[in-house]
Amino acid sequence: MKALCSVILIFVSLGVGGCRGVSREPASARAEPAGRGPLELLRWQQDAWNRGDIDAFMDGYLESDDITFSGSSGTKRGWTTIKERFKRRYPDRAAMGRTDFSDLELIELGPDAALVTGKWRVTRDEDPIGGVFSVVLRRYADGWRVIHDHTSVVPDEE
Amino acid sequence: MKALCSVILIFVSLGVGGCRGVSREPASARAEPAGRGPLELLRWQQDAWNRGDIDAFMDGYLESDDITFSGSSGTKRGWTTIKERFKRRYPDRAAMGRTDFSDLELIELGPDAALVTGKWRVTRDEDPIGGVFSVVLRRYADGWRVIHDHTSVVPDEE
Repeated sequence: MKALCSVILIFVSLGVGGCRGVSREPASARAEPAGRGPLELLRWQQDAWNRGDIDAFMDGYLESDDITFSGSSGTKRGWTTIKERFKRRYPDRAAMGRTDFSDLELIELGPDAALVTGKWRVTRDEDPIGGVFSVVLRRYADGWRVIHDHTSVVPDEE
Repeated sequence: MKALCSVILIFVSLGVGGCRGVSREPASARAEPAGRGPLELLRWQQDAWNRGDIDAFMDGYLESDDITFSGSSGTKRGWTTIKERFKRRYPDRAAMGRTDFSDLELIELGPDAALVTGKWRVTRDEDPIGGVFSVVLRRYADGWRVIHDHTSVVPDEE
């Protein structure tokens, strides 16, 4: 039985990859559909923010009523609710300022799921603000998307 | 090629489960090694807390220098550091009070990884406190363990 299992597991590792390759992507792009892994998605979100484009920034989140955003205001649910929160808190370019993500750390949770932790900082004329975040991402046919975001403000001494 | 892929995928779903069953667990326990899924682990942590047993509570976290705990003090790294933080913040039974986890929501991220979000509340004589948490868990040979915890305090009006 153990020998049979080994054979089957070889089929698994060759087989699933092969099926993906056939159905969707060339081998070179297989690990990062649409050319973006989790970290690239976050860098792309950072760039969108720094262009003042919250709509593009929100493309990093799965457009679903089930995604959640947690922090010191509790947990908000749904892509539209989360987008409205960002637009309310950062109503214009001056409020958005410039954001920097740093200390990004990727933990792969399987072929189609990942956790990224890191620091964020919004630099702007009034009350610069920053802290830490944890985002859980899943990989979909069109690439990775954030399905949960937990963001904390960390006072400046940190 | 598509037909071949389908056959291989059937092998995948039957085969991997079968191998696990042979090597480790009876079928009925396969989904939850040691009898505890992610939610059961958190309930068990809650019970340990309410017995005043932070050491047992910490058994819910992977004993590793790589696990992380994020919140409004930033990100702490390592099982020992996280344990010391809990013991410093909650030095005795009076400080620990009684904790309740609620609104628990499990998102499976694959066979061996999960996200659980929820609310927490510590009820005690002085300054009761509570908020929201997000924990990422992985499944190991001896069961599920938390590898990342992001916890926020939410002021009372929430």
